[in-house]
Amino acid sequence: MKYVIGIDGGGTKTLGYIGNLEGKIIASSSSGPSNYHSIGIKRTKESLGDVINFLCNSVNASIEDIQLLSLGLAGIDRPEDKKNIEEILNFIGVKSEIILKNDAVSALVGAHGKEYGVITISGTGSISYGMDSKGKLVRAGGWGHIIDDEGSGYDIGRKALGAVFKSYDNRTEKTLLTEKILKYLNLKTVDKIVGYIYSNEITKEHIAQIAPVVFEAAYEKDKTAIDILDKAVDSLVEITETVIKKLEFNGDKINLILDGGILRSVKYMQNKFKERINKEINNINISTPLFNGAIGSLLIAWNHLNIEYSLDNIKIQIKEVNSNKK
Amino acid sequence: MKYVIGIDGGGTKTLGYIGNLEGKIIASSSSGPSNYHSIGIKRTKESLGDVINFLCNSVNASIEDIQLLSLGLAGIDRPEDKKNIEEILNFIGVKSEIILKNDAVSALVGAHGKEYGVITISGTGSISYGMDSKGKLVRAGGWGHIIDDEGSGYDIGRKALGAVFKSYDNRTEKTLLTEKILKYLNLKTVDKIVGYIYSNEITKEHIAQIAPVVFEAAYEKDKTAIDILDKAVDSLVEITETVIKKLEFNGDKINLILDGGILRSVKYMQNKFKERINKEINNINISTPLFNGAIGSLLIAWNHLNIEYSLDNIKIQIKEVNSNKK
Repeated sequence: MKYVIGIDGGGTKTLGYIGNLEGKIIASSSSGPSNYHSIGIKRTKESLGDVINFLCNSVNASIEDIQLLSLGLAGIDRPEDKKNIEEILNFIGVKSEIILKNDAVSALVGAHGKEYGVITISGTGSISYGMDSKGKLVRAGGWGHIIDDEGSGYDIGRKALGAVFKSYDNRTEKTLLTEKILKYLNLKTVDKIVGYIYSNEITKEHIAQIAPVVFEAAYEKDKTAIDILDKAVDSLVEITETVIKKLEFNGDKINLILDGGILRSVKYMQNKFKERINKEINNINISTPLFNGAIGSLLIAWNHLNIEYSLDNIKIQIKEVNSNKK
Repeated sequence: MKYVIGIDGGGTKTLGYIGNLEGKIIASSSSGPSNYHSIGIKRTKESLGDVINFLCNSVNASIEDIQLLSLGLAGIDRPEDKKNIEEILNFIGVKSEIILKNDAVSALVGAHGKEYGVITISGTGSISYGMDSKGKLVRAGGWGHIIDDEGSGYDIGRKALGAVFKSYDNRTEKTLLTEKILKYLNLKTVDKIVGYIYSNEITKEHIAQIAPVVFEAAYEKDKTAIDILDKAVDSLVEITETVIKKLEFNGDKINLILDGGILRSVKYMQNKFKERINKEINNINISTPLFNGAIGSLLIAWNHLNIEYSLDNIKIQIKEVNSNKK
């Protein structure tokens, strides 16, 4: 019997589903991160190997029984990235056909349940992706924390740190962010933040984790926090509008999905974003994702093989698969 | 015979001078970088050890003949930093009294030839420092590339990269920065910049080195480049004004020194900065540094020991010392 596998891999975890050629999901598995740019080839091999082997074992299949492996991975943009991932999969023993996409593509397909629509993501990073009925795929933003990731958690966290030091220098007025960030970092004085931020163990994820402190200060009407979040919303609206303008929806209702920790879970950001988008773009429907990116990868695989499936059944199957998890 | 040593150590090199107790400079020496945060303890030991030993050998003295060692080092802000440097000096065999300052302080003293005045530095990073006649020392900015280094080369380089990608996404209009940065990086297409910037060998110095491309585009009237540089000037004016406001100059003429690759060597930035400062602050005199930070450290040492010296003689002695260099 032959199977397809869909995988979504990012900076914190790797999630996979195995399905058969009748459009049914049979098992799921997860492991550690698989963004090889940040964790290296060795750990990416481990995470992808774990997920693929576990999925095959779950259905008593060997790795040769995979008909098609579809992956959406973070940090996959260039031909070199594809080459590196193919080498990793080769090492794991994968012999099947492979579809490899940037994880924003699998997120888009999973979120909509089809290869059509727009998704704007703000988590540690930010990006907007869209696909129209002609299969045209466009993006805006998502160029990473050094070049441009405006409106992301990293961007918000970094600007909050900047605001604390501007206030500490007396360049700007006082802000609630100072006491809140000190409390969050468990530090006594502002100058101690320097040693913490520039220590070797601090990653961009740590900077992004400061964002919830900014939401809290904004709820308490802190002007500095509100300014930072308003600018973040501006940037997210900008990348979303840019994507929509590049696509042809021919007057159809535009479905826009909000994803990532910032846009999906933080009501403050979600509401401000929706308000702005609804004012500026007609005929738009904003919602949260139907499925995750790993399901997105699986749907891409099934679509590629012209296999029929029902999105309602998939919902039920995911629940079954999740309840079977140890 | 006893001697004093003044050292200035940063991210690219370490410079030192040895003087006697009659206020005369006898020899100079330089070595590799000594910012232990970026290059580690081992290489910092080597650089500082090289400079100190060479200076002692130059005057046929042993390390025990040093009466006072004065250092201005990059990245020295916290008690832990002092402790680490003291351990390094102990390892090298230094037994004398030590004066340890942030390199911005020795830059200020060297630049003015006295412990008084204001200095605004924009190189890879940015900072403003000032000291008034009461010996009060204040700073603004200089919190590093993650927290806040507005107006620095890194800041300008990073924003230029962001602008190129905003234009590439069609979020903003075209800019000369695109072709100029591609040419500078020797890359063919914009998406290739991503792989370059996020490769492991890229440091914040590499990002700062993009700044000259922005100056070039601004000279050719590129709006995007001019905007980036205007904001950089705004930030440098802001930190300078903040420092001046915190000090008491009692109506005396305020001497402001501009230093660092951006403010010292780039006429475009220097002129815009001077124009803005002259408009906003009365009774200010802007110039470039009299001496470097290593001379600043030496002057701090002599001042501490109440040793008299003449700044004119120092100028002559530096020339002599430099011509004796191998």
